[in-house]
Amino acid sequence: MPQPLYIRTHPRDNVGIIVSEGGLSSGTSFASGLVLVDAVPEAHKVALTAIGRGEPILRYGVVIGYAAAPIARGAWVHADLMRLPQPPNLDQLPISTAIPEPLPPLEGRTFEGFVNEDGSVGTKNILGITTTVQCVAPTVEYAAKRIKAELLPRYRNVDDVIAITHAYGCGVAIEASGAEIPIRTLRNLILNPNLGGAPLVVSLGCEKLQPEKLLPDGAFPILGAKPYVVRLQDEQHRSFEGMVTNIMQMAEERLQILDQRKRVTRPASDLVVGLQCGGSDAFSGVTANPAVGYAADLLVRSGATVMFSEITEVRDAIGILTARAANQEIAHELIQQMAWYDRYLERDAVDRSANPTPGNKKGGLANVVEKALGSVAKAGTTAIAGVFGPGERVTKNGLIFAATPASDFICGTLQLAASMNMHVFTTGRGTPYGLAMAPVIKVASRTSLARQWPDLIDIDAGSIATGGATVREVGEQIFQTILDVASGRRKTWADHWGLHNECVLFNPAPIT
Amino acid sequence: MPQPLYIRTHPRDNVGIIVSEGGLSSGTSFASGLVLVDAVPEAHKVALTAIGRGEPILRYGVVIGYAAAPIARGAWVHADLMRLPQPPNLDQLPISTAIPEPLPPLEGRTFEGFVNEDGSVGTKNILGITTTVQCVAPTVEYAAKRIKAELLPRYRNVDDVIAITHAYGCGVAIEASGAEIPIRTLRNLILNPNLGGAPLVVSLGCEKLQPEKLLPDGAFPILGAKPYVVRLQDEQHRSFEGMVTNIMQMAEERLQILDQRKRVTRPASDLVVGLQCGGSDAFSGVTANPAVGYAADLLVRSGATVMFSEITEVRDAIGILTARAANQEIAHELIQQMAWYDRYLERDAVDRSANPTPGNKKGGLANVVEKALGSVAKAGTTAIAGVFGPGERVTKNGLIFAATPASDFICGTLQLAASMNMHVFTTGRGTPYGLAMAPVIKVASRTSLARQWPDLIDIDAGSIATGGATVREVGEQIFQTILDVASGRRKTWADHWGLHNECVLFNPAPIT
Repeated sequence: MPQPLYIRTHPRDNVGIIVSEGGLSSGTSFASGLVLVDAVPEAHKVALTAIGRGEPILRYGVVIGYAAAPIARGAWVHADLMRLPQPPNLDQLPISTAIPEPLPPLEGRTFEGFVNEDGSVGTKNILGITTTVQCVAPTVEYAAKRIKAELLPRYRNVDDVIAITHAYGCGVAIEASGAEIPIRTLRNLILNPNLGGAPLVVSLGCEKLQPEKLLPDGAFPILGAKPYVVRLQDEQHRSFEGMVTNIMQMAEERLQILDQRKRVTRPASDLVVGLQCGGSDAFSGVTANPAVGYAADLLVRSGATVMFSEITEVRDAIGILTARAANQEIAHELIQQMAWYDRYLERDAVDRSANPTPGNKKGGLANVVEKALGSVAKAGTTAIAGVFGPGERVTKNGLIFAATPASDFICGTLQLAASMNMHVFTTGRGTPYGLAMAPVIKVASRTSLARQWPDLIDIDAGSIATGGATVREVGEQIFQTILDVASGRRKTWADHWGLHNECVLFNPAPIT
Repeated sequence: MPQPLYIRTHPRDNVGIIVSEGGLSSGTSFASGLVLVDAVPEAHKVALTAIGRGEPILRYGVVIGYAAAPIARGAWVHADLMRLPQPPNLDQLPISTAIPEPLPPLEGRTFEGFVNEDGSVGTKNILGITTTVQCVAPTVEYAAKRIKAELLPRYRNVDDVIAITHAYGCGVAIEASGAEIPIRTLRNLILNPNLGGAPLVVSLGCEKLQPEKLLPDGAFPILGAKPYVVRLQDEQHRSFEGMVTNIMQMAEERLQILDQRKRVTRPASDLVVGLQCGGSDAFSGVTANPAVGYAADLLVRSGATVMFSEITEVRDAIGILTARAANQEIAHELIQQMAWYDRYLERDAVDRSANPTPGNKKGGLANVVEKALGSVAKAGTTAIAGVFGPGERVTKNGLIFAATPASDFICGTLQLAASMNMHVFTTGRGTPYGLAMAPVIKVASRTSLARQWPDLIDIDAGSIATGGATVREVGEQIFQTILDVASGRRKTWADHWGLHNECVLFNPAPIT
């Protein structure tokens, strides 16, 4: 039988994380001399010292809560024993007080990508058909199905045809505060590097979001020419079949252009990698997220763009981030994004206890503070080089905070709009997530999950907890996998099965 | 050349609607002696008398605006010439002051439907697979595709297999105000009569909206047995292929049950018909909506349930509705729904000019008041027998106000949740709308649209404007078409092509 194990994440911590699969029973003793006085589930916390009522509970060397009752050494520190601390006051944060020194550049790392006219580089070569309004979605899906069946097989260099459908309709208060967010998101989605700068837009005709409002003239260098637009209400379309024929004809012109493209060797600096986690557990912050953080550092050293996001899951760790901001302006941009979101949530008096989910809690994450501290581990150790709002196109290299809600699909959609061409997704509880527009590499925080879902999980970071691999080893594996997948040499499981979550727009404006 | 024509909707009106296709030029004279002093587009308004600055502009016998400048007899009364009136004050409405007398019952009208255990009746026989969270959507879509290809052909009495996917995820503030709306909507969707009371639920495992929260024990008489639930994170699933196999096995058990069902003759009182309009023009309130209103009266006379909805598009006509409420309690429920929505929109200071859309305006609808008055024509002339909140299951017969936003897909989704088994959709500008869960009969307000889209429009109401048919004739045609489609004797164009818009949840709570 293997030795019972726990992990102390930081030397200051007064709790440890139980690593042994299936949890440990009361009375279990460890090499350190600690003896469990409760049964403690896997990934949950054990008190390493006696903690008095009201005293801080420390993980990652940071206060994640206060003891609601006296806690004995060896006891299970479950969520009910912890009082939630207040979120950091946005007026009293450290501003660029701990800017990390630049790490040594990493030269010569490359991948094989598709170069676009504006200099952006695709990791896939996809024809995207976008829609201005949900009214046209079924028509475009009908056409896309026929394009895939009848046309795509003749264009072997094109990876896919996707209908970018969404729930945006005329029932959106288009002039309300925040209403620009879904519009710029839709605009920037169609400009994603993996779509090759060849947008095809299907419009109904009477909608609020007219094609000219979606893609104004000359605003986007990625567009070699004006976008192709099909308006279903135009009189030239004498029937449904006529509309579909017209969409298919335009699609074929775009396919001919995309088919001419070939992968060429590009420096890793052309990568725009979005990081996200979903279905997290207490291991996420010990195994998968630090390994992704290591890969993030390698990417930044290679000159790439690395985005982390999920406002509500970094809010409680914001002081760590403002201290790391490369300059004061960036620190203040971070604070502005947090303040905007605080107001958005306060409007409806959203309870901070709404996150974590039941599954997160079952996975040992007691509250949103503990979740946040684990979440920011994905961002590695470099300076924060830029901040972008929800749906904005990221135009800087280095480590970027792209502000998004934590909802997996909204975050993924906004990172695609930010021009993401590779996605890394960590999970502890497990989720069969994927995106049509960019490859998603899924990293498991637990070996047991990787074993349970061998045909969904791309990388197992769980062995870090048991000492089977180091953070550095798994981090390098993630980095190499990013290069392989970006080059088309390796396929993610999500792409193997065609598991692609729909785009979901973030729309803070009301529905009319 | 045909006689130039305009329509005066109500004897008190001081504007008319130009009916002549393509509009009329300045100098055109009518049989009434009126001479146009401007060119007036088709479906737009002409002044029938001189109107002084600040004087009311009357259509449907009601004030739709005030003249922003003096308007000459024969001039084009376009949107810029009209000041928008204030919406009716909710504290000063007529309460059940004009309750219509019941119309004579209509006996013997029947359709062929599928009877469910709870007494509700389906017009289709569909296997629905619902999802608790967007994480599982691509997995369910993958499984549904295989079920349709490999299993459905063996079950000839089953019409379809649909994955009820949606954007609901853990990034929803589940305890915030209004958060119960998307949850009850999802719950009632799976209980729609067309799904035969055989819900199959796919859950991830760690989500906030657990299957027990979605479908609590014993709460729903439609469930003959407990719902079948597949949890992807359960340890029994050792791979993605294992999950899919499990979903397919449960689906096959459900298909066997559904396949035993046969259509039987049922009274029209078992119909639950949802009414909606989208892409409206100024003809909608003259042709398609009054014809649908006539059909609504026939349905109510047959004992059926008829729902109208779209809060923001009835808000300006609310006084007409409260007067028609069958009793004071119902009138006050109507007012409560309006007041809730007023507050929801005020929170973000939504401008009343956000509706109508550019297409509505091009179609001659100057403002939301004119749109509302045309919209309520769909509701016919009977007393309002009940009011239900967004996503609530309607449990009464007669004319029901089912409160929903005006957004087509959200309204359609909420009407499906309300237990709609037939949908009638009027359109002036044209939209290729459809729903997977219930048949959608599309009625055009203009003959020119019906001619342009012969393979999308099911019924042409445009001839009412030119005198080619009466409201009664088209209304009876709509009623008969509802019975034919509900019986499976006739297929709508949307079903012919498989044009099905996604369900979109109404979630007034913020995203976290």
